[in-house]
Amino acid sequence: MQQGLIMATSKLSLIASILLLLVVLGLKPGVADGRRRLISGRGDEPCLKMTVYYHDILYDGANNANATSAVAVQPTLLSRSVSINDTFFGEMVVFNDPVTAVPSLQSEPVAHAEGFYFYDRKESASAWFAFTLVFNSTEHRGTLNLMGADIVAEKTRDISVVGGTGDFFMARGIATLRTDTFEGKYYFRLQMDIKLYECYV
Amino acid sequence: MQQGLIMATSKLSLIASILLLLVVLGLKPGVADGRRRLISGRGDEPCLKMTVYYHDILYDGANNANATSAVAVQPTLLSRSVSINDTFFGEMVVFNDPVTAVPSLQSEPVAHAEGFYFYDRKESASAWFAFTLVFNSTEHRGTLNLMGADIVAEKTRDISVVGGTGDFFMARGIATLRTDTFEGKYYFRLQMDIKLYECYV
Amino acid sequence: MQQGLIMATSKLSLIASILLLLVVLGLKPGVADGRRRLISGRGDEPCLKMTVYYHDILYDGANNANATSAVAVQPTLLSRSVSINDTFFGEMVVFNDPVTAVPSLQSEPVAHAEGFYFYDRKESASAWFAFTLVFNSTEHRGTLNLMGADIVAEKTRDISVVGGTGDFFMARGIATLRTDTFEGKYYFRLQMDIKLYECYV
Repeated sequence: MQQGLIMATSKLSLIASILLLLVVLGLKPGVADGRRRLISGRGDEPCLKMTVYYHDILYDGANNANATSAVAVQPTLLSRSVSINDTFFGEMVVFNDPVTAVPSLQSEPVAHAEGFYFYDRKESASAWFAFTLVFNSTEHRGTLNLMGADIVAEKTRDISVVGGTGDFFMARGIATLRTDTFEGKYYFRLQMDIKLYECYV
Repeated sequence: MQQGLIMATSKLSLIASILLLLVVLGLKPGVADGRRRLISGRGDEPCLKMTVYYHDILYDGANNANATSAVAVQPTLLSRSVSINDTFFGEMVVFNDPVTAVPSLQSEPVAHAEGFYFYDRKESASAWFAFTLVFNSTEHRGTLNLMGADIVAEKTRDISVVGGTGDFFMARGIATLRTDTFEGKYYFRLQMDIKLYECYV
Repeated sequence: MQQGLIMATSKLSLIASILLLLVVLGLKPGVADGRRRLISGRGDEPCLKMTVYYHDILYDGANNANATSAVAVQPTLLSRSVSINDTFFGEMVVFNDPVTAVPSLQSEPVAHAEGFYFYDRKESASAWFAFTLVFNSTEHRGTLNLMGADIVAEKTRDISVVGGTGDFFMARGIATLRTDTFEGKYYFRLQMDIKLYECYV
């Protein structure tokens, strides 16, 4: 009986060991998921967080050396006809803009933003963005792909980080945009708070 | 011996308790994943499902007040030259279209769709879309970002929900498009069945 | 005492069984995640891997029958003015390109790539892509949605697979691009190594 019990117990021990093994194996995705899951969305810490500054220097016909973006598609008549202030409805800008770690345009870029935006509102200037942040610094090598509506009238707007490569392999997250400086049509700066909630590490 | 056994058993108890704790911790992501995972893809219920109607009212040169989209890029000659029926190859439309919960265009919008589509077939009219659904209603605040091919010839076509913000934080899923009404080039309505399979709650 | 122990043990057995059940349930997402998770990113095997060839045959004004893409937006002056070799800054091409399983353009397409690219560098030709791979073969039915920077100067460049439908329901991954053949502006071929790291099966 006792022997039976001992056998049962050691059988139980074996089960427990297997369980432990399974649980440990089972927990690995759990741990990975701890990073991938954001309970109630906004309180948890992202797995990677950084603030960068996007500088758009639009081609004005003369600033060839400095310009980093250009109007590829002229605005439509739809925007022009509804208000005195042109909202540029349909105007599309292609850019390859420097992205810096501190606000100053003179600071060394940590990335480039390659992509486009277009204006898409009749009532006020508002834009839609899709672009790639191409990192090629000592700190990061790789890309982040983003898209979303940049509703300029709102103080902050969130767009999606839909994928990444290299150091940002398979990343997903949110970028919060804020117009940092707006010097008319030919230069503006966006502060981008990038928060990744899915990281593969 | 018995004492040893008891000790072994209570040691086992301790292990079991730790296991239980680990399992419970381990299951949390499991539960979250229950929502994020779709076994065999098509049978499971999405974590969020809604049907909305997208109304595209194209600018015709005179409907300034009503138009919500405009041709930003004219079609190429490629499309024009292969058939009598123009397939508009290369034509790009920028839109900021109302999105309603019921089919009627007169109903209160629950969202706006900001983005663009372009025609990309020589043989028949077919389009490619990328846009943001911007929700700003009592029910939902936040955005969903979508992209994909809208193969008009097929009765239903699936595009990807690649990200979300606000109430739709980090969402992913599928939107099934159906041409609901097509009144020539200047008005069409798409029924969009949005099914999210990854929700953060 | 022994009876107590037996009871304790069988109680433990019960707990163990529950644990086992929980672990098994808990492991299901783990197993699913085994596919979704890529420890240290680059060593693990993708859940789906395939190599396809993308053929871009640009409309030259005369090749109506063969052309599968066309310039929808002309390059800006920004690119033209900085070098003798035009980098086409801002030029946008809409395509509906055949995608084959072997390099030969004459082989049967396994998919079509519907989307667009535009040139976005002043110093050298480099492009940004967003497109849908539409599969409609005996092997695969469904779509993959991709976006990212195609930095032509680099031997291989990674873009993101941000979503999928049909057989590729909810897929995510990476596509590695390689310029396979470049016959001037009017024909080039890209080898695309598609690696999905998130599959729903």
